[in-house]
Amino acid sequence: MSRLTIDDVISALETPYPDFEIASGNTALILIDIQKIASPEPFVKAAIKKGFPKAEVEAAVRDYTTRFWKAVDNSARILKACREKGIDVVHVHLEAPTKNPLHTAKVNRNIGLIVPPASDECKSLDQVKPIEDELIITKTNGGAFSGTNLDFILRNMDIQSLILVGFLTDECVAATAYHASDLGYDVLLVRDATATHRKEAHEALIWSLDDMCLKVYTTDQVLDKLSRIKSARKTS
Amino acid sequence: MSRLTIDDVISALETPYPDFEIASGNTALILIDIQKIASPEPFVKAAIKKGFPKAEVEAAVRDYTTRFWKAVDNSARILKACREKGIDVVHVHLEAPTKNPLHTAKVNRNIGLIVPPASDECKSLDQVKPIEDELIITKTNGGAFSGTNLDFILRNMDIQSLILVGFLTDECVAATAYHASDLGYDVLLVRDATATHRKEAHEALIWSLDDMCLKVYTTDQVLDKLSRIKSARKTS
Amino acid sequence: MSRLTIDDVISALETPYPDFEIASGNTALILIDIQKIASPEPFVKAAIKKGFPKAEVEAAVRDYTTRFWKAVDNSARILKACREKGIDVVHVHLEAPTKNPLHTAKVNRNIGLIVPPASDECKSLDQVKPIEDELIITKTNGGAFSGTNLDFILRNMDIQSLILVGFLTDECVAATAYHASDLGYDVLLVRDATATHRKEAHEALIWSLDDMCLKVYTTDQVLDKLSRIKSARKTS
Amino acid sequence: MSRLTIDDVISALETPYPDFEIASGNTALILIDIQKIASPEPFVKAAIKKGFPKAEVEAAVRDYTTRFWKAVDNSARILKACREKGIDVVHVHLEAPTKNPLHTAKVNRNIGLIVPPASDECKSLDQVKPIEDELIITKTNGGAFSGTNLDFILRNMDIQSLILVGFLTDECVAATAYHASDLGYDVLLVRDATATHRKEAHEALIWSLDDMCLKVYTTDQVLDKLSRIKSARKTS
Repeated sequence: MSRLTIDDVISALETPYPDFEIASGNTALILIDIQKIASPEPFVKAAIKKGFPKAEVEAAVRDYTTRFWKAVDNSARILKACREKGIDVVHVHLEAPTKNPLHTAKVNRNIGLIVPPASDECKSLDQVKPIEDELIITKTNGGAFSGTNLDFILRNMDIQSLILVGFLTDECVAATAYHASDLGYDVLLVRDATATHRKEAHEALIWSLDDMCLKVYTTDQVLDKLSRIKSARKTS
Repeated sequence: MSRLTIDDVISALETPYPDFEIASGNTALILIDIQKIASPEPFVKAAIKKGFPKAEVEAAVRDYTTRFWKAVDNSARILKACREKGIDVVHVHLEAPTKNPLHTAKVNRNIGLIVPPASDECKSLDQVKPIEDELIITKTNGGAFSGTNLDFILRNMDIQSLILVGFLTDECVAATAYHASDLGYDVLLVRDATATHRKEAHEALIWSLDDMCLKVYTTDQVLDKLSRIKSARKTS
Repeated sequence: MSRLTIDDVISALETPYPDFEIASGNTALILIDIQKIASPEPFVKAAIKKGFPKAEVEAAVRDYTTRFWKAVDNSARILKACREKGIDVVHVHLEAPTKNPLHTAKVNRNIGLIVPPASDECKSLDQVKPIEDELIITKTNGGAFSGTNLDFILRNMDIQSLILVGFLTDECVAATAYHASDLGYDVLLVRDATATHRKEAHEALIWSLDDMCLKVYTTDQVLDKLSRIKSARKTS
Repeated sequence: MSRLTIDDVISALETPYPDFEIASGNTALILIDIQKIASPEPFVKAAIKKGFPKAEVEAAVRDYTTRFWKAVDNSARILKACREKGIDVVHVHLEAPTKNPLHTAKVNRNIGLIVPPASDECKSLDQVKPIEDELIITKTNGGAFSGTNLDFILRNMDIQSLILVGFLTDECVAATAYHASDLGYDVLLVRDATATHRKEAHEALIWSLDDMCLKVYTTDQVLDKLSRIKSARKTS
């Protein structure tokens, strides 16, 4: 006989965030920081350079590396389907507007995270390269909405719902998800198209957000939803 | 012999968010949703009304209830010290501006969380009652910055750092913390002056935020910092 | 034979801002600062107290006073029609949240314009008193969007167009109009339901805004548009 | 014997916006839309193409053309002095992020003002070309603050005062000025480093803004202020 938990009580009392429709012209796919800088490679190299034994570092990051590249592949699958169905695509990137460190947001300047403009590490990972006329929004802080004009652009496009993928679950993705739902967007967060270093932090965040202020789905569920969209919007 | 973990690697590579000074005229204490509606009582009553056995419900929420009231007491201790030292105080409350449900933000309207104006559940818990000329900012969404003029008021007061306490760690507090740090505030989140239903979610969020975009301290550490402030600002 | 002016050239080259539909559920009436503090009386009294001869002051303000009270009456006529047709109504008021001068925006603190909370001068003029469940948004700065959560509330209500009335044409009304159109709202500014001290400043502003970023109409034209709305929205 | 006017009464009663210091590290120069698209040439060409007689068009725009180029020269003089004194410089430009018309703000899309990315008309006028590491902020709407992350960047740089120059006085400059002062910036608007088509509209706007929410100075006065700054800030 299983004991009643606080989760059971909450589930019984709360109204889950309702499901919503995804549609061309109403929905945008937001790819967050799927850039070289977010990939595990520079991270692993830096650790080895710092003196950690290579084998141990690789063992330590193995689980994260697997989850990261799986999330990149899933983001790429969703990106492909969105392009086919006329869902607007926005690439959000960490990238400073100039080399002047004062032009990077305090929050990242304070931890030394300054990403020079047009540097190699700014580039999109090959799996999700932007194509012509897809928006690229650069930022120097965490959340995609607080240091950019992303909200301004999306509302002027009449976008009302968002599909969120990218990195890291408990940093830029979480900041973006909380803010997006507060702004009134219906948000669909793709559980296996995002990742963070610690699996527990990823799971905890997903658990907290799901049904509280947004919907969490798997890549396969999102692809299924996208497959049911009939016709793409013709742009002007 | 202990194995290298991804946490060890991250700790060795990253620059932690730097410490910062707390001072009268520069710092504000933000109390988030420390209201009757956030307390466990209505929650427990609703569960019992729904048919769950009283003893089982009480057992299920015991750990949360303990952490919640401890966090209220800690918030009250910090509030008292801030008042003595001339640190500005802002009470952020869930409360709709009118009874029209359209005047509540979509995100909360969607889950049925509508808090009528001037209702009993809006009230501050007794431990942290506002006093004259303390700001009360009402909101109908999660984060304290996205649906209010809180940022406008704080920057017009020249506030540059924030002490955050209140509820729930992984809902309104997290949304506020991510947003505040992105806006450029130095944020001090008080670990044991906030809580959420699941202890794991609380711990995971604290772990993710700490040293990434803000500083996490205990109530005792914050009280120690406050005790070292010499003189209070004279208003006007 | 009349000479070609730069106005003729501009008119021939530019696309005027297009007309748009007003509808219950999509449109909100925004009444800006139609409060005792905006009326000519305190102004006239202060001038006399300062030593200016009463007759001369009254002569000096006669034209403004006439235009002001005409604009109040016109605002009241539009308010009545909006209520009948289920157009949402928002009263924007100058009013500080507390007596602490730091809680007033710098811009108004700098010129000594601090309006104490719940003071007599805060009150709506009798002609446009708010009724139950109409939103009252307080501000301590000029524009109705930059120091409040007005935009947040309107977008969460799915409001897409605004009717603007109130005071002063070249201060709070202009700041609100520019900002509203930039945010993506279709704005209808009511020429004779707003006024400012100098008639030339009023006329110049109306001329600049009209067809550039919004539509300007007379009260009679707006009442005609409102009369053609068929049914009022039922609020949930 | 001159009669008392409403202007006399206002001047006697109101506290003018106070003067403020300009300093490296605290002040930024904002150049608004000083681009080919804003210059009278394309405008004159279009009018002639439309069938207006060349001589008449030139006569009609002569006054504006003179004021426009004088304002460009004055902006260039201020820009040079700011660079010498280490005042941060921001170039704000009308320019769409992509060729997709939906990525232009509604307000400008509605009047057909779509400025393709990297087009010739986007370019800065030669007199005020950006140099390395000067910020260029692009926008597709009127005000420089409402559709960009300009405010985010400036506050993260600890900028507290702004010098505004550029075009047009009663469109983008006015929208920017009202918004900037509402946000809490001390704003210095340079009377003869801005212009608009109709001289009356320019004069009226300057009259309305001056001492209400900002300070208006001439280019010579601003150059004098700049000349008294002692040392430039060393970046990082």
